[in-house]
Parts: sequence; structure tokens; C-alpha cells
Amino acid sequence: MFNPLSDRIIQTIAGALGRDALDDRPETLQEYGRDTSDLSANPEIVVRARETAQVEALLKLANEYRFPVTPRGAGSGLAGGSVPVCGGVLLSLTDMNRILAIDQHDLTADVQPGVITLGFRQEVRKQGLYYPPDPAGMELSTIGGNAATNAGGPACLKYGTTRDYVLGLEAVLPTGQRITTGTRTRKGVVGYNLTHLIVGSEGTLGVITGLTLKLIPHPPAVRGLAAAFTDLPAAMAAVHKVLTSGHLPSALEFMDHRSIKLVGDMLPFKVPGERPSLLIIETDGAEEQVDRDIELIAGLCRQMGATDLIMAGTEEERERVWGVRREISLRIHDNYPVYIPEDVVVPLGSIAAFVEGLPAFEDEYGFEVYAFGHAGDGNLHLNIVTTDRNNTDRFDEGITAILKKVVASRGTISGEHGIGLAKKPYMALELSADSLELQRSIKKVFDPNNVLNPNKLFPEA
Amino acid sequence: MFNPLSDRIIQTIAGALGRDALDDRPETLQEYGRDTSDLSANPEIVVRARETAQVEALLKLANEYRFPVTPRGAGSGLAGGSVPVCGGVLLSLTDMNRILAIDQHDLTADVQPGVITLGFRQEVRKQGLYYPPDPAGMELSTIGGNAATNAGGPACLKYGTTRDYVLGLEAVLPTGQRITTGTRTRKGVVGYNLTHLIVGSEGTLGVITGLTLKLIPHPPAVRGLAAAFTDLPAAMAAVHKVLTSGHLPSALEFMDHRSIKLVGDMLPFKVPGERPSLLIIETDGAEEQVDRDIELIAGLCRQMGATDLIMAGTEEERERVWGVRREISLRIHDNYPVYIPEDVVVPLGSIAAFVEGLPAFEDEYGFEVYAFGHAGDGNLHLNIVTTDRNNTDRFDEGITAILKKVVASRGTISGEHGIGLAKKPYMALELSADSLELQRSIKKVFDPNNVLNPNKLFPEA
Repeated sequence: MFNPLSDRIIQTIAGALGRDALDDRPETLQEYGRDTSDLSANPEIVVRARETAQVEALLKLANEYRFPVTPRGAGSGLAGGSVPVCGGVLLSLTDMNRILAIDQHDLTADVQPGVITLGFRQEVRKQGLYYPPDPAGMELSTIGGNAATNAGGPACLKYGTTRDYVLGLEAVLPTGQRITTGTRTRKGVVGYNLTHLIVGSEGTLGVITGLTLKLIPHPPAVRGLAAAFTDLPAAMAAVHKVLTSGHLPSALEFMDHRSIKLVGDMLPFKVPGERPSLLIIETDGAEEQVDRDIELIAGLCRQMGATDLIMAGTEEERERVWGVRREISLRIHDNYPVYIPEDVVVPLGSIAAFVEGLPAFEDEYGFEVYAFGHAGDGNLHLNIVTTDRNNTDRFDEGITAILKKVVASRGTISGEHGIGLAKKPYMALELSADSLELQRSIKKVFDPNNVLNPNKLFPEA
Repeated sequence: MFNPLSDRIIQTIAGALGRDALDDRPETLQEYGRDTSDLSANPEIVVRARETAQVEALLKLANEYRFPVTPRGAGSGLAGGSVPVCGGVLLSLTDMNRILAIDQHDLTADVQPGVITLGFRQEVRKQGLYYPPDPAGMELSTIGGNAATNAGGPACLKYGTTRDYVLGLEAVLPTGQRITTGTRTRKGVVGYNLTHLIVGSEGTLGVITGLTLKLIPHPPAVRGLAAAFTDLPAAMAAVHKVLTSGHLPSALEFMDHRSIKLVGDMLPFKVPGERPSLLIIETDGAEEQVDRDIELIAGLCRQMGATDLIMAGTEEERERVWGVRREISLRIHDNYPVYIPEDVVVPLGSIAAFVEGLPAFEDEYGFEVYAFGHAGDGNLHLNIVTTDRNNTDRFDEGITAILKKVVASRGTISGEHGIGLAKKPYMALELSADSLELQRSIKKVFDPNNVLNPNKLFPEA
């Protein structure tokens, strides 16, 4: 389908973009051929763009010579979205990493796509401003990659995901045309919403070469707590109570009993019962307000049966609580040679019943499932694991069964990680043939020669 | 381009949808041929849908017989978006007006498109929940119309616009296929974002027949104030001070000197100087918090030179302040026979300079401009008026000049009202030829026969 990159084509690319943009050392090809999933495929060459004109030139050549181009940020994705599965050019945007402006008056920032998320959050904070999206890998991930995948994190419940903070884009279309989309204002209804179509398209509709981001005033203070419950239904009843009592927490996380067993030694109390559950709740705002809010939330948790509760008022105490949460993934990784991360979302009211139903799948298919994640928005990280590397025959079948239940619960098969390569086979569980067909047609309008990040998202027809 | 609706076609429609769905009385055609702009064009027939299957059937027939279909909510739009400019069928969705579910556990609602916005807000409030979008016409407008135009209002600064609350849609594509898009969860990254592409497409990409909406906990209390300043730059300096001091008001409105002169008799104080300005600021949250917040905000306003300030703590006091704001449009309407509403947005930091520059246009083009609107998000309602009906020759030229300045200020020509028919000629001021071409191609993918709301949005090629 694609032409291999002949020497002549590579010379042409070098002539157009500059020799120093190209890198074909074997270790580079291998490094840029993977993300943080276990999927990989080496590109034929890596191109590191330093300016938008290079991206334009590259895509024009891709259409002329019919080779694939796969854009990549930090490669911290979990679904293989940046894996160059058709070979060709791996286009790295990490060298376009400048914060061009942070505008205190407009409450906006202009950034290049390779800016690291955490660093950006720290920079805007220095000016009293807040960029809320907080994906788990934000110390590695780039803003451009976050926008490509519409990354989210614990802050989603109160503040939304990356999409909600992208006001406008500069993007190079698959045909090599540069366009700007959106606005640098909080409102704007002129024409179709190309901005939010390209955001979340996982690098299949355009290469993001610049972003105008919305900033908000930084909340002056944060307070947190961790509360233990005898079971998950009790914990979720407390979540419901909190959310319907006028509180909108800035984080609302849960852990299931397996996760607690794994990291329980880090907790300052013994968690009760056979199948306990833990909530982490945070609230942000003015100093006096968060002090009062967190007391009220603690009261609601006790009222709903919390057996133990620790307050996390200081930065150190909060860090300790989040450390427990982060440790789950690390220990799962260390303890299980087979480890498949799923990232489903179910409606808030269905979380407890859904998680309580997981043991039936464990019994049937021979894996264990660790469940933890965002109780406030329904996004459950299901970590499907086994210690027995040779006994995974029915895993695919079991995962399909779980994802079918997600869809039957009116949920979605991915809340944050995206489809990429890893979830392609499951797309049709959620989307109708008509919807998929319409999306393929949109891809074709943007990318008539299918050169940009081909063979992603859509299941083979 | 389109076939007129022959008796045979009308009989076919009646056969497929039911005779009682059709209405061709002259007064009906006239009523449904207009919105609240001064644009109008009678349809050949009005169809009132009661269920999605009728919409599907109608659009299938439209493709078979090549007649245009223009969807319409309450007809409260300001840009002619629902005016059936090509004749054909006017499809009214106002009879699909049921709230199907308000789910306290999932924090979602399922509604039909014809539900009136204000009524919906009141219904969810009874359950302690909040649907923030508050477009000015919300006592008339429908949720479906709000979604089609991505309507916003004062709450945008803190809470966003309609788009931010639409999680998923049921829509009938122009070809007559019914699809569902999105999720009923707060996160979801599966496939392209068709939901937010159809939202804001002004009824050109699909007929919205159902919506799943996001709800949030209702803030327990609101407090407001009105503050007068000697000029607009002083008022905008106060806005900047408030926004960079950790406050995120739930409303932040301004009035220019002309507006104040028009409604000043309703204010409890005499506003100072030649070109004074007024801010209305509200904050919402827990009782004790809003009391303290509004005091702090009042202090910041005084520090930044507010000459007078009234607090609006109770519902009645707030209502009185908003009554002044609402009265502006009514009195403009009463006083000026020629009245053109513009709805531009400029970056926050440019509001003062932009509004201060309006007199130059007044002098040049012979109109007066009233400016008021959303100081917190930069959305300025410019009301271009004259008492002299016979002296409007240079109005178009003057409006074009103002809109060019908006774009040069890195703003957008419409923040809320949309493009419809009224703003079509100005689209190319803001969007590049490549962007317009891409959008036309997307329209073509959705609507190959161009039957749904044709001749809207895009300037003639």
C-alpha cells in the first residue's frame, strides 16, 4: 500500500527539511517505534521537526511519494497511537517545545506541541494561573500529545479534560496545508468546530503544531481526605451523597479491595472487611472555604459509613495519599508478568454494580482484575493481570465480555487512553456501522491518500 | 436547484409522516418563516415532528425528491439560521418536548430537542442539580436550538457554553440515517468527536432529535454586585484584578456609557463622568463562601477606583440588577427603527481598547454603537443603530470595518448568535479559504445532496 522510503525519497526529505532533522540510527528507530503499551513497530526514519514549515513540507512529500507519517509526542501513550505500524516516517514534535506566551490579561497561553504538561502547569502557576488537565503521565507527556488524545485525569470531574482547554490550534492537515482553527477567546461559534474534531483524533486528522490554551485563576488552596468503607457500594453511596449535597470536588478517586490489599501497608489504618474500598477526595478554592468544605465532606463520609478517615490538609499529607494511589500501578507492574490496562467509563450510578460484577469474569476467564480510578466521572482503570504467563488463552474473550458489559451499562470503552492500535478491534462494540462509516468518510476528506497515522482507530472494514 | 413541493410530494410526505404532521396555512408559513432577526422566507410547508422516525422518513424523502429541509426550534435565533431560505419543508421540533429522564445518580439528563431551556433548568434544580447554560432567550429557546447554535450566556466564564454540557446526541443525518454520538459519561475518547461537530453546526450536519446532558451539583448560593467606574479602561482593570486574584465569578457583565445613559434612571446612584462604565459581578458557591467572596470582590473594585457600588445579596436585589441589563435591549429596540445586533468577541485584554475605539467608526459611518455584554469572556454585544432610517448607506461598510478590527484584535465575529444567513458574508474575514473549503467538504460528506438547511453558513463560493 505504501512505498518503502527509498534512498531517493530520503534524500528528497533531507533536501526539503534539512539533513539534521533526520535520524536513522537503529537505536533511534527502536526507541521511537514504541510507546508505553507493549506494541511496537520500527519506523524507517525519524524526523524531528523544529518548525511548522518542516511539517508542511514533509506531508506534501508524503502525498507525492505515498509514504506514511506518524506523529509522536513523548510516546507516553498507552494504546499504541503513535506506533508507526506502517513504517515510513516517525515525526517527533518534542523539539517544538517552547511556551510562546502566557497572557495574564487574556487568560490564555500559546504553546508549541512538544511542551511538557507538568512544566507548563508549573509555569502558569507562577503567574497565578491554572491549567487543570492532569493526565497521569504529565511529567513526561506533551501538550500536543494530550490534545491529540484528549487526555484527562482526576481533575476532569470539576474541570474537564484537555479538550476543554484548547481554544484554538495551528495544525498541518494530512495534505500539507497549514490551517488555524478556533479562537483565542472563550466563546466562538464561527463555522464547524474543527478544533475539537482534531483534538482527540489521535493524530489522524492533522499534526498539531501550535495550541492556544485557556487558563483560569489558580485556586488558592486544596484540601484532601482519604476514607475507608466496608465495601464499594457504601463508598459509591458516599460519592453520590457528596455530589448531591452541593459539593463539586476537584478529585474523587476510588480503589477496590484488590488494590487496597496491594498497597494497604502504606495506609495509616487497617482497612475493614473482606472487600473494602477507599475514596480519595479533594476540594479546592479559597483557604477558609476548603477548610470548611473538607470538614463537611468528611462529615458526609462518616454519615455514609466511613470506617476510617484521614485528613490531608498540607501538601505533604496530600502527596502521601496520592503516593498510595500511584503505587498501585507500580506494584501491579512489578508483580504480574501479564498486565493489560483497560480504561472504561460507566455512568456514575453504575460504578458499584459494575465493579461488584467483575469477580464473575475473573472466575470465568482466569485473570484477576484490579479496579481503581475516577469515581467522580466513572472512569475505571481495570488492570487485567495474571502471574501465569502460559494461561492467557481466554483473555481476549474475557476482555471482550467486559467491554460488552461496559457498553450494555451505557458506558464507553475508553475514557482517557484512546483507541490507537490496542482498542481498534473493540470499536464496533460501541459504535454503529453508520457512525464508523461516517468517521471513515471524515478521515478521507482530511487525508485522501491516507498518509497520516494510517491503520489507526478504525477496525479493518 | 430544488424541486418545488408538488402535491404528489406533499401527499407522499403526508403518507409517510401522517397527515396531522403537516400544516400549510398561510399564517403558519409566515410564522415559521422568521426568527428574531429581520430575515424571513416562507417555507412551502411546515412539518411538526413528534418522533424521530418522522424525521428519518422526511429526510429520506428529501433526498429522493430533492427538496430542502430546515430544522427549527423556537425560532428565537438572531442570525436567520432557521429561516427556510430555499423554501421546502420547515421542520419544527418544538413538539418533541419531553424531559425523558433526570438521573440524580449519573448526574445526567435525557431530553428531547424541543424542551424549553428555562423550564429544564427549573426542573433539574428541584433535584439539587444545575444546568448552567443561560442564553438570553432561555425562557423561549429550546435545548435543541441551543445545541445547534452552541448557545452561551453570562455563565460561560465559569461554566462554559451549551457544548460543554452535551455529552451525547441522537441525530438524524441529512441522508436520513439515525445515529447516536458521544456517551452518557463525563469522559469518552472513542472515535471522532461527532457530538461537538454537530453541536454548533446550526442544523446543517444533522437534526438533533435527542440529547444526553451533563448536570452538576447546584451551587447553594449566589451573591452579586454592581460597580460604577469613571471609564471602561478602569472597569476592565478591575475585571483583570478580580480574575487574577483567585476569583472565578459566575457572571461578569459590563455596560458602556451609551447603555448607561439609556437605562441610568433605573440605577440607585448617579454614574460619574462623561463616559462611565458599569460592571455586574456575581459569584456562586456555599453560603458563607459567597458572602466572603463578594466582599473581597467589592474591595478589589473599590481599590481599582469604583465610584459607586451596590451589593445584590438577595434574589430580589439580583433580579433588579439584571433587570437593568435586560432593559438595554428593550429600550434600544423601542428607540431605534434601525437596529443591527453584532455579537463579537475580543480577547479579554483587548476589550477596553476595542470599545474605546468604537467612536471612530461612529463618526465615519454615521451610526451609533451601544456596547454591553460579557466582560469575563470578551463577548461584546454591539448594537448598531440609528434613528435615521434613510441614512444607512454606509452601514454594511462600517460593520465590515468593525468586524475586520475584531479579527485583527485576534477575536471572532460571533460568540453566541452564530452565522446563519446574517453573518455569511463575513465568514471569509475570519476563516481562511482552506478552512472554508475543508468545512464545505465536511458538509458534503454529511449531506451529499445538500438538502439539510442549505445555503447557510458558507459564503457563496
